Amino acid sequence: MHAQAFKVGMRAPDDVAEAAKLLDQGAFKAEHVVAILGKTEGNGGVNDYTRALATLSFQLLLAERSGQKVTAIAKRVPIIWSGGTEGLMSPHATIFTREPDRGSPTGKRLAIGTAYTRDLLPEEFGTAVHARVAADGVRAAIKDAGIDAMDLHFVQIKTGALTTERVNEARRRGKGVITSDTYKSMAYGRAAAALGIGVASGEVDASKLDAGVIGQEFSIFSEIASTSSGVELMNCEVIVLGNSRQSTSELVMAHAVMKDAIDAGGVREALRRAGLAVDSELAEADRARLINVFVKCEPDPSGATRGRRHVMFEDSDINYTRHIRGVVNGVVASVTGDTMCYVSAGAEHQGPPGGGVVAVLARAAGGR
Amino acid sequence: MHAQAFKVGMRAPDDVAEAAKLLDQGAFKAEHVVAILGKTEGNGGVNDYTRALATLSFQLLLAERSGQKVTAIAKRVPIIWSGGTEGLMSPHATIFTREPDRGSPTGKRLAIGTAYTRDLLPEEFGTAVHARVAADGVRAAIKDAGIDAMDLHFVQIKTGALTTERVNEARRRGKGVITSDTYKSMAYGRAAAALGIGVASGEVDASKLDAGVIGQEFSIFSEIASTSSGVELMNCEVIVLGNSRQSTSELVMAHAVMKDAIDAGGVREALRRAGLAVDSELAEADRARLINVFVKCEPDPSGATRGRRHVMFEDSDINYTRHIRGVVNGVVASVTGDTMCYVSAGAEHQGPPGGGVVAVLARAAGGR
Amino acid sequence: MHAQAFKVGMRAPDDVAEAAKLLDQGAFKAEHVVAILGKTEGNGGVNDYTRALATLSFQLLLAERSGQKVTAIAKRVPIIWSGGTEGLMSPHATIFTREPDRGSPTGKRLAIGTAYTRDLLPEEFGTAVHARVAADGVRAAIKDAGIDAMDLHFVQIKTGALTTERVNEARRRGKGVITSDTYKSMAYGRAAAALGIGVASGEVDASKLDAGVIGQEFSIFSEIASTSSGVELMNCEVIVLGNSRQSTSELVMAHAVMKDAIDAGGVREALRRAGLAVDSELAEADRARLINVFVKCEPDPSGATRGRRHVMFEDSDINYTRHIRGVVNGVVASVTGDTMCYVSAGAEHQGPPGGGVVAVLARAAGGR
Amino acid sequence: MHAQAFKVGMRAPDDVAEAAKLLDQGAFKAEHVVAILGKTEGNGGVNDYTRALATLSFQLLLAERSGQKVTAIAKRVPIIWSGGTEGLMSPHATIFTREPDRGSPTGKRLAIGTAYTRDLLPEEFGTAVHARVAADGVRAAIKDAGIDAMDLHFVQIKTGALTTERVNEARRRGKGVITSDTYKSMAYGRAAAALGIGVASGEVDASKLDAGVIGQEFSIFSEIASTSSGVELMNCEVIVLGNSRQSTSELVMAHAVMKDAIDAGGVREALRRAGLAVDSELAEADRARLINVFVKCEPDPSGATRGRRHVMFEDSDINYTRHIRGVVNGVVASVTGDTMCYVSAGAEHQGPPGGGVVAVLARAAGGR
Repeated sequence: MHAQAFKVGMRAPDDVAEAAKLLDQGAFKAEHVVAILGKTEGNGGVNDYTRALATLSFQLLLAERSGQKVTAIAKRVPIIWSGGTEGLMSPHATIFTREPDRGSPTGKRLAIGTAYTRDLLPEEFGTAVHARVAADGVRAAIKDAGIDAMDLHFVQIKTGALTTERVNEARRRGKGVITSDTYKSMAYGRAAAALGIGVASGEVDASKLDAGVIGQEFSIFSEIASTSSGVELMNCEVIVLGNSRQSTSELVMAHAVMKDAIDAGGVREALRRAGLAVDSELAEADRARLINVFVKCEPDPSGATRGRRHVMFEDSDINYTRHIRGVVNGVVASVTGDTMCYVSAGAEHQGPPGGGVVAVLARAAGGR
Repeated sequence: MHAQAFKVGMRAPDDVAEAAKLLDQGAFKAEHVVAILGKTEGNGGVNDYTRALATLSFQLLLAERSGQKVTAIAKRVPIIWSGGTEGLMSPHATIFTREPDRGSPTGKRLAIGTAYTRDLLPEEFGTAVHARVAADGVRAAIKDAGIDAMDLHFVQIKTGALTTERVNEARRRGKGVITSDTYKSMAYGRAAAALGIGVASGEVDASKLDAGVIGQEFSIFSEIASTSSGVELMNCEVIVLGNSRQSTSELVMAHAVMKDAIDAGGVREALRRAGLAVDSELAEADRARLINVFVKCEPDPSGATRGRRHVMFEDSDINYTRHIRGVVNGVVASVTGDTMCYVSAGAEHQGPPGGGVVAVLARAAGGR
Repeated sequence: MHAQAFKVGMRAPDDVAEAAKLLDQGAFKAEHVVAILGKTEGNGGVNDYTRALATLSFQLLLAERSGQKVTAIAKRVPIIWSGGTEGLMSPHATIFTREPDRGSPTGKRLAIGTAYTRDLLPEEFGTAVHARVAADGVRAAIKDAGIDAMDLHFVQIKTGALTTERVNEARRRGKGVITSDTYKSMAYGRAAAALGIGVASGEVDASKLDAGVIGQEFSIFSEIASTSSGVELMNCEVIVLGNSRQSTSELVMAHAVMKDAIDAGGVREALRRAGLAVDSELAEADRARLINVFVKCEPDPSGATRGRRHVMFEDSDINYTRHIRGVVNGVVASVTGDTMCYVSAGAEHQGPPGGGVVAVLARAAGGR
Repeated sequence: MHAQAFKVGMRAPDDVAEAAKLLDQGAFKAEHVVAILGKTEGNGGVNDYTRALATLSFQLLLAERSGQKVTAIAKRVPIIWSGGTEGLMSPHATIFTREPDRGSPTGKRLAIGTAYTRDLLPEEFGTAVHARVAADGVRAAIKDAGIDAMDLHFVQIKTGALTTERVNEARRRGKGVITSDTYKSMAYGRAAAALGIGVASGEVDASKLDAGVIGQEFSIFSEIASTSSGVELMNCEVIVLGNSRQSTSELVMAHAVMKDAIDAGGVREALRRAGLAVDSELAEADRARLINVFVKCEPDPSGATRGRRHVMFEDSDINYTRHIRGVVNGVVASVTGDTMCYVSAGAEHQGPPGGGVVAVLARAAGGR
């Protein structure tokens, strides 16, 4: 496998101009694209349709350039958006490609795998069934990538959300749902998918997926999980990123953990593990080698950060996910100098409570 | 002069419990309080009444403990709030006191001065008249503090805002206003007051206060100005902070400039200038010496931070001031470890475009 | 009893100028004020501090004019605010007074009663205990008013809300809470208090207050209940409005039900029951007789109004209570011609699902 | 000409299922569609991408069903969305079709015309140039429709908005723009387009299009204009609706004016002019004949409705357009019983200040 990744800025959710230009220049081929992961400028909530618009726009681009139908693209290429670019976060997509080997492997390098699960029923959503379906999807994607579990660094799942209609549909069939609060259902979806990742990676014991754990017992978590939710689907779409000795990629993945939202030390550690030089900030000389940073975050559930009260859970105007994304993007960018990084909120079971995974994708030192 | 400062957390805009406890313990006396500067958890906009509630609550506390009337407190003690504690920012007040000398001065230490200006008419608001009135107020406060202009480090002005009623009142008298957009009037108020500070400090040439400059020509700025706006007043309340050889305070002020919102280097520089040890982060041993950090910030007016697009000016749900405060508080706290710091947005003519002043108040090394 | 009511507009949450003017003019005396019920211009959510500011401002006014202490006022006069004046709703207070008889009763006229309950523990909040405490409070207020149950027209309860701190405090004591979502706790508080009103009025069977009913089974409701929530208290403050043959008031209460949010017919019916002439709209000649309209409302829980989808439950930017208040105020005002009316959202168990009580306070025909 | 109109509900901005079903059933043909006008569930502001998503979704549907390319559809069929379905407003589209005559005309019936103008430069946006370009477009659409000016009832223009990038682009060329506030630019765009409609209809004197009028002098207005703005375009797309003796349509247009936001009388008048029976509400028997109501609205610019203060211009959380749309939709639906109607905010020069046009599209009495 030869894996590549291209980060493209977007001036609107339907702006695919930078990607189109790279295709024009021959930087990659549409038929080699295996996954897209990005940030759109919506509210990140239930009614965030920037995700659907961006998905449709990239599908149309890939269809046009590959000659494949949009429906075929939709079954082959997971396109996952986390909505919400608060603060300085710059809307963008990371486009992942996979091709046959180019030359021989020279060490552990980037490998990518993907998978789709079946659709969940509203009554399964956010439950142990959801987590098990997610775990099966992750196992399939790991196999697709050819990565050892120990070399996993970032597993992204996009899953669904309950809407008033889905809730009512289940109730008409006499089924209960985990919550009828549509916004809150997004949290349950993220939680179930994250535990599914932990089960597949071996971090979480599958026997622990009972009712009192999902969305509740946050001492149980995966350090490489990143999940997001959106009304636009009801299954799990999985992207697995890690390193493999079979890969001829010039890129390498690494990860660390931010123990809370202002843990710039965690960011520095992840950069260093990817082979980049960091003093207080990423060394100027290595900035061009950084492709992207992928981060999950959440407000400290205690209502305080290092003992200081925060107001995010009391704010009835702005949802806490919107608050925290802007903060963490700023903290990461203050180290890397680049506000175009992927920060997604809602880190239920994704890293320690109040913290989250920070993964780095970079050009390997001495990479061709 | 012996100046002290006490930072107290607030669990709501009317929570004065920590301040009351310090009074109970004899940490300071109500009659020695000369100014209060803090952050409340409102939206920071036109209809942010958390500021009025906090002001009234602290006035009632000081009146009760000093035996003075609320109306007398209101004329003697500027109580200035910047609304908006987005992200992790922890609502709080810094209470400044002034007493007769305690012993002899031992170097340049904290000195404080205050002043009130006359009320502005709606048609004067945001104009050169406003700036000149502000400059006169700053000069009076500098004199009150006994600080040399070169030893100024932070000048805070709270000024007013236009409301629909004030606009209509002026129009009934046949007078125009600088804008009928109430939210935007807050920006003009901050701009005029900031240029007034620059005139008084000598940073800005008074002859430049013509129509095309205020709120427009941001290459003209003060590096020590911090201004905020609110409907609750129509004059300027001024607090001047600096160092003086006449002060017996144990505290010291310093400042630097953040050149943009992710300039953690500017934060480190200000901490070092205040005599604190900083590697990537503030040294553990010196954390107890830090009283507070006072910062002004704004989105880069170009629509991009270090070349990367931000969406703050296109967001019709959340005002840009709300976005940027959360980011900069996170950047500062990632260096100091403390999210309870003062970050105020709307930095028109307060530091370079897209950046702002960062001032540090700390216990002096070897302070008693 | 001689009961009066005065509606005063407010230009800000701390604007008591119209009330002060009425006191100056001798329209009523501060010591005769028994209750205040109004609308403030906050967000109506957890962090709506306009309610606290308005309460403190009116308490200070009544204290100043009556010579009583603020703490005494706080124990004698329930001051209840519903936050949120979306759309055209005009911020205002209705001030209720009670004096000895003036002359002899001439029919069923306005009578008022009030009561305070004990504080609820976080773990009791939103449960059957909460409902029973509320019911006891309503019974006390009915007795205070001297109204027969059949002559009740509007019972207002203000109750509390859970905050992150209250939730954590309960958990430290090993107690569970009904929800840890602070915004949602407001709905549970309203629901429990409303069922308490129904129990006291005889509309609801006390044996039905079990776990599956409160906040869930909305076919059980009171037609005269109006409840609201706010973090600023943890007990129930009760105001009971109805008619009594013992009252010498010139005013009269009536009520009907809006079966959904666009049921202008329900508004017309309530006005007619109060003796006012209505064609499509309130007759011009009778407009001066209308004091106020008090309405509860909520989005249809099915997600559709008369079969047409609404988006209020999917909106992650604006809470559904904010949407619906503006709508219903507009519908009422399109009949009465007056946007200064009391519309409060969150009508759990207060009228039929998707609808709510509409009560009218008017000068009686031929009243002195 | 035989004109038809079909109102279809949408469960999301990309939900074209109801339209697809009508095509499946043969209700109309894709190649006969000449215009689509609808409401999407975004914020109606600068970053409302629901409009772009809905446009793309309907273009793809029409392309698929007609065999035409999306780019050809985009040049032939104006698809205009007003974002924002606050309160009860139900997201939907009205699809207009035009075919050859069916039988002979039997009176004045619905006729439709459309046009596209050239793109405007940022420096032209919101100026007299913009108004003149719009007027030319309206004249072309009137000609296309074959309607006499006296039989015009509703002219819809969708125009653009300034973005930070467009502003900067103009400035790089040394050109000024009417405002650099992106949200406010939408108001200037609506204002200029509305005056253009008035010029074309003869309601406004073309010599009055000078700087002090557009967006300022609201005593100058058109009673049939409806304009909206969005970043997704920079030209004017025009849809003209009226009646013609050449039309064989079964439908008829009428209009009246709402003099303010609670003027239900204006709604009743427009319904009656369209031949529908109305008492306080639209008669049950005639409800099936109503196709749609098209309304423009805005907060009263004085800050008060019939003398009562409103808070919409002071609200820094929710833009005033969001407040007012929900109110007016509720007022209209309280008369018609149908919340699925078109209410668009920002009525600069579109009806009297604080009011707006209310147009009705209905099946003619005795229509085949």
